[in-house]
Amino acid sequence: MSTTSSSTPNSVSNSFLSPTFSPTNGNVTSMILPLLDDLHVHLRQDEVMTQVVGETVKGGVGRVLVMPNLKPPILTTQDALDYKAKLQTASTELDYIMCLYLNSAQTPSEIIKAKQNGVNNVKMYPAGVTTNSQYGVDNIKSFYEIFEVMQDNDMIFNIHGEVPSNAEQNICVLNAEISFLPLLEQIHKDFPRMRMIFEHITTKDAVDFVAKANDKIAATITAHHLDLIVDNWGGNAHNYCKPVAKYPVDRQALRNAVASGSNKFFLGSDSAPHMKGMKESNCGCAGVYTATYLAQYLADCFERINCLDKIQGFATEYGADFYQIARQTKAFELIKEPTIVSKEIHGVVPFRAGETLNWSIK
Amino acid sequence: MSTTSSSTPNSVSNSFLSPTFSPTNGNVTSMILPLLDDLHVHLRQDEVMTQVVGETVKGGVGRVLVMPNLKPPILTTQDALDYKAKLQTASTELDYIMCLYLNSAQTPSEIIKAKQNGVNNVKMYPAGVTTNSQYGVDNIKSFYEIFEVMQDNDMIFNIHGEVPSNAEQNICVLNAEISFLPLLEQIHKDFPRMRMIFEHITTKDAVDFVAKANDKIAATITAHHLDLIVDNWGGNAHNYCKPVAKYPVDRQALRNAVASGSNKFFLGSDSAPHMKGMKESNCGCAGVYTATYLAQYLADCFERINCLDKIQGFATEYGADFYQIARQTKAFELIKEPTIVSKEIHGVVPFRAGETLNWSIK
Repeated sequence: MSTTSSSTPNSVSNSFLSPTFSPTNGNVTSMILPLLDDLHVHLRQDEVMTQVVGETVKGGVGRVLVMPNLKPPILTTQDALDYKAKLQTASTELDYIMCLYLNSAQTPSEIIKAKQNGVNNVKMYPAGVTTNSQYGVDNIKSFYEIFEVMQDNDMIFNIHGEVPSNAEQNICVLNAEISFLPLLEQIHKDFPRMRMIFEHITTKDAVDFVAKANDKIAATITAHHLDLIVDNWGGNAHNYCKPVAKYPVDRQALRNAVASGSNKFFLGSDSAPHMKGMKESNCGCAGVYTATYLAQYLADCFERINCLDKIQGFATEYGADFYQIARQTKAFELIKEPTIVSKEIHGVVPFRAGETLNWSIK
Repeated sequence: MSTTSSSTPNSVSNSFLSPTFSPTNGNVTSMILPLLDDLHVHLRQDEVMTQVVGETVKGGVGRVLVMPNLKPPILTTQDALDYKAKLQTASTELDYIMCLYLNSAQTPSEIIKAKQNGVNNVKMYPAGVTTNSQYGVDNIKSFYEIFEVMQDNDMIFNIHGEVPSNAEQNICVLNAEISFLPLLEQIHKDFPRMRMIFEHITTKDAVDFVAKANDKIAATITAHHLDLIVDNWGGNAHNYCKPVAKYPVDRQALRNAVASGSNKFFLGSDSAPHMKGMKESNCGCAGVYTATYLAQYLADCFERINCLDKIQGFATEYGADFYQIARQTKAFELIKEPTIVSKEIHGVVPFRAGETLNWSIK
């Protein structure tokens, strides 16, 4: 199958783009877009949850895939439903797509129960690679019985695609993602009908892998990885995240992926709030906070890389299509007026704090 | 020529090693060593200078190559002599080897004057790669007249071997050093009699280059690069330095270089004090502070990598030999008793703060 859609603007079906839209970018002063589908968010718990949900709505988002790496993690259908109820109390403006955390306690019957209750996603964290991943997976083959049931029930498998660092094998945060590719390929080969999402990809190798794979494999890309390289997190804790931003060629590959208009790459911001003091420290948490200005970050970046016409597909259509859910029908407007990013939001320093973005939400 | 000395303990000439010494490490409980030659230090100015000089003495060091990247930089012989006089006021326990900062204002006559006044070193910073390098070099060929005079006067050329990041050329902090190698090779080819030191090397490529080069090229290695990889500075500002620590194979190559006992690799700590608040921030300074415990860090690391017998050559003989200056005659004793690294020293967080090192200075 073709892995990229046509690059003409007509390929953006059901377009909400306003009449002023032009693929040359220079003429565009406003865009009416469907609410964004952010298919990878960290909404946290308690008071922070209420704040983050509100900020996510501000960023132009209408629907989210909610990460299950809470304390304690979302292991059961009931955990997911309870968490969803709390999220709905915080705001009804978001649609919450829930997700189970895969670990050794997972059972086939729980997967079936999840499916019956509308929880269609399962997330895999290899043990020890990111925030609250200590409950994660360290032996893929031991999960094959679960994968079988997931495939048979058409669950979506969300994968944090990194292997743990291992100095003896020369594996570190820089090659943790490309070292995961053979494992991903093996799972795909053994479960060819299972839909899998390679999340927050950061390397040219990952882009190439997904582009060449069949239509059961897609990838999410964050807003910040479209703009960061390794130099940007050296000395700046707020740009430090997992997977880490890598070489300039890797960033370029991510930009090329979104600019191509391929429907295999869609938005998952991985927006992760960590208090300023937990970042600016000698053991800083990994994560970049993009929730509040997500639409503006994307517009600012897509304009710079000359593919504003690809925002709609990337941020609100391809993901829904892959999930086989209805596309968004509510819309919002982005206008070309400056937004100054706050230096701090509820104690969290957002991405590009203090900088000026070229777009605002009307 | 042979690039590595014999690995038998007998090859450590003029040994100060105590009678309890054994190359199997396990038996060693004390070592009497000559005072260390730290051939790359940042001693700063004013009050901080006085503190750092004192801490450097505490670390077992007797002689230092003083970096010239002050504000303003040490550009002339007079600058160097004035700075040396201030350093001697701070402490007479250290011997200070002075160094000029190479920039476009440098003249052949100033180089000759420096030599006549005992300033035998010139330091090159490619523009923009590290702390106070904005006055540095951006066109090597324009310095060939200076290099000619440096070679004729047997000056030592100390080189920060990194090229500036350039996204279009895929150059970032990770490959800035290996991208510099062709330039180093070119200078060496064009000035084959000039002694050059490739400072604070961090990559297997750099180790291999120096090991294969002739006896006019040597390299310094820091204490911290023997222990760090990229994972260690992600999220920990105090391990962030330039050049950045890289892959596990790179760290292993550095460890192999010192364990080999090759006289082409010697100590230059690049110890750099930055106030805690300037590190734990959103634009943290690059630099690791190792001055206070330099001998203990080295003993702790060399013991772990099973080459305690190579400390003396690395930290106090090979550098002096390359500089063609007398080896140290004063000695100090390291004993195998734990040292707990302070969490903060004069507002600076030292390397491995709060951790326990296996060795102490008696």
